[in-house]
Amino acid sequence: MSHFTRELTIAWGDCDDAGIVFYPNYFYWFDSTYHAWLRSLGSGLRDVKARWGAVTPLVDVGATFRSAVSYEDVLCIKAHLSEWNSRRFQLDYVVTCGERLVATGFEKRAWAVPDGNGGIRGSEIPQEFRALIEGAPLRSETA
Amino acid sequence: MSHFTRELTIAWGDCDDAGIVFYPNYFYWFDSTYHAWLRSLGSGLRDVKARWGAVTPLVDVGATFRSAVSYEDVLCIKAHLSEWNSRRFQLDYVVTCGERLVATGFEKRAWAVPDGNGGIRGSEIPQEFRALIEGAPLRSETA
Amino acid sequence: MSHFTRELTIAWGDCDDAGIVFYPNYFYWFDSTYHAWLRSLGSGLRDVKARWGAVTPLVDVGATFRSAVSYEDVLCIKAHLSEWNSRRFQLDYVVTCGERLVATGFEKRAWAVPDGNGGIRGSEIPQEFRALIEGAPLRSETA
Amino acid sequence: MSHFTRELTIAWGDCDDAGIVFYPNYFYWFDSTYHAWLRSLGSGLRDVKARWGAVTPLVDVGATFRSAVSYEDVLCIKAHLSEWNSRRFQLDYVVTCGERLVATGFEKRAWAVPDGNGGIRGSEIPQEFRALIEGAPLRSETA
Repeated sequence: MSHFTRELTIAWGDCDDAGIVFYPNYFYWFDSTYHAWLRSLGSGLRDVKARWGAVTPLVDVGATFRSAVSYEDVLCIKAHLSEWNSRRFQLDYVVTCGERLVATGFEKRAWAVPDGNGGIRGSEIPQEFRALIEGAPLRSETA
Repeated sequence: MSHFTRELTIAWGDCDDAGIVFYPNYFYWFDSTYHAWLRSLGSGLRDVKARWGAVTPLVDVGATFRSAVSYEDVLCIKAHLSEWNSRRFQLDYVVTCGERLVATGFEKRAWAVPDGNGGIRGSEIPQEFRALIEGAPLRSETA
Repeated sequence: MSHFTRELTIAWGDCDDAGIVFYPNYFYWFDSTYHAWLRSLGSGLRDVKARWGAVTPLVDVGATFRSAVSYEDVLCIKAHLSEWNSRRFQLDYVVTCGERLVATGFEKRAWAVPDGNGGIRGSEIPQEFRALIEGAPLRSETA
Repeated sequence: MSHFTRELTIAWGDCDDAGIVFYPNYFYWFDSTYHAWLRSLGSGLRDVKARWGAVTPLVDVGATFRSAVSYEDVLCIKAHLSEWNSRRFQLDYVVTCGERLVATGFEKRAWAVPDGNGGIRGSEIPQEFRALIEGAPLRSETA
């Protein structure tokens, strides 16, 4: 199973008036974990744009909160690829603090390319991108 | 049907590198719409805490994105109460830009009170709070 | 003196673990007040880009904090133009909560146009922009 | 000279419509660098509160921007203690991207303790805190 894990320490400004994480921050962390994952594979959104002219906009997102965390808690965010179809893919996230489950969540993303009128339209995901994020060795572009 | 509507103009800092709204901001807007709704009813989280010693933490949240919006677009966010049970309630949100549907989303919230050990525990939602958010006239506290 | 005032209510997510506004938010509010000011004059950064091909990046910013504010406090942010030279201008901000002074701050901005190599370079501020933000009636472009 | 350095990679959501860092984020990074510094010394704001009952609110902040950075750029933020007096201290920050200077900034912080009426008041900084942040070996609390 293709997955990626990162750690972060909760900053002062990430918490709200109740002293716990302000929940939209989880989505900021999901998004940046996806980017960090791509980066760990030698890619990233700039590379995706450069190689395929594509972006990966969000279609559906969600999160379920199990326990509260606050300033200076260290979170582990584990991402894995849970679904692929020809035009969309889903990343699932599990957030823990030590042994404790904090939250789960997901991001369903589309593959989109410019539509020629200043907008974007959905398109088929190239096999190379799937291979990339599934952690298979990246095929040489000159092969 | 109990509902509440607010407008906002997308700020420069709300957008991302692609020039569209960075999606965690939708949840910031959902949350602040809920607070604005309570405020419009003469309440707010401080009042909820003062009157019932309670907070309303998130249990589940989600959003579906239909079309992109960017800097200076004017959004209309309509919230309505979609579900109640004895311990939880759900708010649904519809975000539009003019006639165009931008996003839908929801927040499922619990009613929680201090558990006596520095944490919180779920509890039954008082009838007065339900009456409040359903827009019924607020019963006098001295009645 | 050219100036602009707006009000805002402090949101739940704007506060930090200490229950007061997390200070970087003041700069988010300064920036969005500048944009709202331009908008109130029938302009905005898109218009600035369309008409003059320019952006107005920050050179220097600062703030002094006088008293703390928290969730649901209503802030009044007053902006005024404090300095112009041929290539830069400064906006000063005063933040109050009722009669109480909360913070003061400033943004010094440059006028910049594309340098032809993917970057930007400083340039002279057009008289029309100065007239615009000083609130003088906007000269007709066909005049 | 007492100092502390950290690195961070610019996230997608840190950038604005122009594709460069939205400037309030620099202050978020300054603040979290201060916290990370304390943490690296075995302390942190919770520890400061527990040991001395104190908080370290901002009095004055500022930043000067020298060059733009964007998504996936790696920043180095170097903090050093630039000023102490009996009740306040200042941290200066230098942000670089490789060899390039990106920004400089500062945070002037006060030492404050509860005033007994739900607020806080300025107070003298304990020698132990100064010793701590100056990186001197922390005196044993039982000594």
